[in-house]
Amino acid sequence: MKIAVFGTGGVGETIGSKLVELGHEVKMGSRTANNEKAAAWAKKAGEKASAGTFAEAAKFGEVIFNATLGAGSVEAFKMAGEENSAGKTVIDISNALDFSKGFPPSLFISNTDSLGETLQRAFPKAKVVKALNTMAAPLMVNPRALPDSHHTFMAGNDEAAKTQVKAILASFGWKAEEIIDVGDLSAARGLEQYLPLWTRLYGAFKSPMFNVKIVR
Amino acid sequence: MKIAVFGTGGVGETIGSKLVELGHEVKMGSRTANNEKAAAWAKKAGEKASAGTFAEAAKFGEVIFNATLGAGSVEAFKMAGEENSAGKTVIDISNALDFSKGFPPSLFISNTDSLGETLQRAFPKAKVVKALNTMAAPLMVNPRALPDSHHTFMAGNDEAAKTQVKAILASFGWKAEEIIDVGDLSAARGLEQYLPLWTRLYGAFKSPMFNVKIVR
Repeated sequence: MKIAVFGTGGVGETIGSKLVELGHEVKMGSRTANNEKAAAWAKKAGEKASAGTFAEAAKFGEVIFNATLGAGSVEAFKMAGEENSAGKTVIDISNALDFSKGFPPSLFISNTDSLGETLQRAFPKAKVVKALNTMAAPLMVNPRALPDSHHTFMAGNDEAAKTQVKAILASFGWKAEEIIDVGDLSAARGLEQYLPLWTRLYGAFKSPMFNVKIVR
Repeated sequence: MKIAVFGTGGVGETIGSKLVELGHEVKMGSRTANNEKAAAWAKKAGEKASAGTFAEAAKFGEVIFNATLGAGSVEAFKMAGEENSAGKTVIDISNALDFSKGFPPSLFISNTDSLGETLQRAFPKAKVVKALNTMAAPLMVNPRALPDSHHTFMAGNDEAAKTQVKAILASFGWKAEEIIDVGDLSAARGLEQYLPLWTRLYGAFKSPMFNVKIVR
């Protein structure tokens, strides 16, 4: 499949490299066509990897991963052009983290709204599915890195898009019973508001290599 | 030990009954001296159980459990009289849930503040420890009701108070490694903002009998 990955940070690189490893063609999108980090990633990731603007990446991808910083997510999709995300599954990994007052961060959208919903409202033709935002990047694409089973959550309004996301998560190594569908996209509020607990746990453990398992 | 439990709902009853079962003397506090639910609970729970006003309960208790509805927590401690919680460990189980627009609830305090911190600011001499607010009452006092190990979190500014809470949690059946200290009381923001995810999971599972295990 042809997949766009928005964002040149650690999450974008990790997701992009895993997708290439799985045989997909991946274009990493950023603000400019000649972003150095994106070019370096594409060179390292091999011939199925390329880099371009958000618009070029979105046009290229049948599916779009949003791994931009939350504060830049809506702007990235604006720069991509609404027509280039229309009808496509957007896997939104971003978080509304506000580091302006240091660590731990607060959220710049929360409680009665979420970043996922904000993105969906701004681009109503995209099929936004919130997923993977509740853990560190290495675990997103390699759940077996932890010594026990654990869970990833999913929220979105489009069932077909969710089914597509489930298949991608399965290809990352997530077992079907490890993927919990928490409902429509308003449940992204729950997924995003878990981050303040995540950041405190990160502070306590001094390592991001942990995740939640729902025991029941 | 003599313990006060504020709140006559399911959480207060469950905590109170467990404490009586463990041999403590427990006074359930509410707005009025003749609260029917508190009286019925005390009658059922046995001779070590009693009921009274918030002030009577707080005066009685060496430790105070706050199991009131979040919206009434500060008022309950006001009614109790500041002098009656001064110097005492307050185990704050409450959540800032706002059900005014139905289910799932939003939070009436969140992000850059928490109910735990609000209570601590209002009663600076109390030693507020946020704990147990992230799960259903039956699990608080019987963690072994789930088929796997799982975790409870704790946040507070007073180390001696936290040590006391750990001992009480241990008496409830929590193993030392199942209690995660996430830091000072500002971490209550994380514990309280987990609730929007909890409520979505509750909606998905149709049962409150679940909790998170941190896998790492």
